[in-house]
Amino acid sequence: MCVACQHTIHKAQGHLGWNNAFEPALRVAPGQTCFFECRDASNGQLTPTSRVADVGTLDFGQVNPVTGPVHVDGAEPGDALKVTIHQFEASGFGWTANIPGFGILADQFKEAALALWSYDKTGQAPAAYGKSAKVPLKPMVGTIGNAPAAPGLHSIIPPRRVGGNMDIRDIGTGTELWLPVEVEGALFSLGDCHAAQGDGEVCGTAIETSMSVAVTIDLVKDANLATPRFTTKGPVTRHLDEAGYEVTTGVGPDLMAGARDAVARMVDLLTAEHGMAPEEAYMLCSVCADLRISEIVNQPNWVVAFYFPRIVFA
Amino acid sequence: MCVACQHTIHKAQGHLGWNNAFEPALRVAPGQTCFFECRDASNGQLTPTSRVADVGTLDFGQVNPVTGPVHVDGAEPGDALKVTIHQFEASGFGWTANIPGFGILADQFKEAALALWSYDKTGQAPAAYGKSAKVPLKPMVGTIGNAPAAPGLHSIIPPRRVGGNMDIRDIGTGTELWLPVEVEGALFSLGDCHAAQGDGEVCGTAIETSMSVAVTIDLVKDANLATPRFTTKGPVTRHLDEAGYEVTTGVGPDLMAGARDAVARMVDLLTAEHGMAPEEAYMLCSVCADLRISEIVNQPNWVVAFYFPRIVFA
Repeated sequence: MCVACQHTIHKAQGHLGWNNAFEPALRVAPGQTCFFECRDASNGQLTPTSRVADVGTLDFGQVNPVTGPVHVDGAEPGDALKVTIHQFEASGFGWTANIPGFGILADQFKEAALALWSYDKTGQAPAAYGKSAKVPLKPMVGTIGNAPAAPGLHSIIPPRRVGGNMDIRDIGTGTELWLPVEVEGALFSLGDCHAAQGDGEVCGTAIETSMSVAVTIDLVKDANLATPRFTTKGPVTRHLDEAGYEVTTGVGPDLMAGARDAVARMVDLLTAEHGMAPEEAYMLCSVCADLRISEIVNQPNWVVAFYFPRIVFA
Repeated sequence: MCVACQHTIHKAQGHLGWNNAFEPALRVAPGQTCFFECRDASNGQLTPTSRVADVGTLDFGQVNPVTGPVHVDGAEPGDALKVTIHQFEASGFGWTANIPGFGILADQFKEAALALWSYDKTGQAPAAYGKSAKVPLKPMVGTIGNAPAAPGLHSIIPPRRVGGNMDIRDIGTGTELWLPVEVEGALFSLGDCHAAQGDGEVCGTAIETSMSVAVTIDLVKDANLATPRFTTKGPVTRHLDEAGYEVTTGVGPDLMAGARDAVARMVDLLTAEHGMAPEEAYMLCSVCADLRISEIVNQPNWVVAFYFPRIVFA
């Protein structure tokens, strides 16, 4: 529970997809603090007893639920919400899956795979993975946004200028996130929490988990923001950068091809050096390794680099 | 000077462009340590008394010189060089320019701009920029690679699978870089040092400077490496992450468009909040802010984020 929260929104008060016709689950005044109880991205379909076959039978009509929407008094198109993330309450169970057809290397990893995690709710201890890896934790909100102006039901999967399924690793404790408002009341929702994720979320899933999140929702009139922006109050990688990184690269004129090459080469490196199965390495990359654009100006070839934190095998 | 170096290669022992027919400046055995004296990327054309008009009259046939090539005994196609970066000796003078036609926002910044830096040779103190910004330093090698197998002269500008002008921020002190070998002897060269650079090098130049670099060159037989990879022995952003980041985003189906949007929005934010001229903000971004791919799997929209370190204005 959140002792400083004026409101609590329960897990059942959520929705699938975005639609500005959804009735608000709650109405708040700007400046109020709310506690969002969130379901995991499988909407409870994957549990501590799940097996890989359960990935193949997932009902995708139920995935990525978010909690909300919250109507913010006085919010109008052209304004922004400023959302401050205060704290997470973790469930301790998580899962990571390779879902066929999803992920940056979907053409190379066509079979379902599943990893189950039992992680430290306090986030202090890294989470064990396979024979020898340990992944440092940093809770974050994967999906956070306002309702789009366009009428009707919209898929929850792609992010938009109003936010949504952005899967930004650093939307975590202490971050102030600014989100454009497109409809009266903003209709703000969040969910899809992760106990850990790397920049890119390359296999398509992170340490997916049920969590609760306390946030303060402020209103900034006439912000005229094109897309989300955010401020982190402190460093963003110190939970895992102590031992440095192994880095692979992709070099060429297409950033997506460069990213795919860099990730595939890291999978090869991890399988060669740590005896992991390729799909096991791919999922590990998704929860802890970072895609960076090292160089984007030396025509015609750009460099995309994939940073894997060495502390995972330290 | 480098007390532990077996060899020194002087600034004059360099070349423009890559060509595997260039005569080696030096022949070394694997495991030897060399001191490379490097000219700046303007090849001495820009100096502490230069003005913005000098950017417009640069002779581009002289830019981005590298020191070398070094012939490594026993290196053959399919092998890799493992290059360990030991130390830098800095000159204390640097420049950053917006060169028309070059840079991720070349269509928006068509006029030449120039910033001159007088920086701490020890790298301990941040470098002053404009009225209020201070940029933490971290020396790095922008161009480092082997000669390509394809005959003839090749532009120095684009990086290739053998390395070259990769402009990777973390090819600095302590890094071990693996570079594919395509020709007998490898024909290794380096140059284009930067006193500081952000991931992406978005305006096309960093804090360009003349430096010397001590490296050990090892040979890894039959490495069969597709593109360069590297290992950093420790954290890569602690010189500037203490105060956190301001982050802007680009959201959409094209990574290049997303990167351009994120950078343009950061330029807008810096000009609004710190009273900088747009071209001044753009060059500042290039020397300290990082392009990251936050999300690359939620079809059809990806998120590119641009991280500007708040310590610059702390």
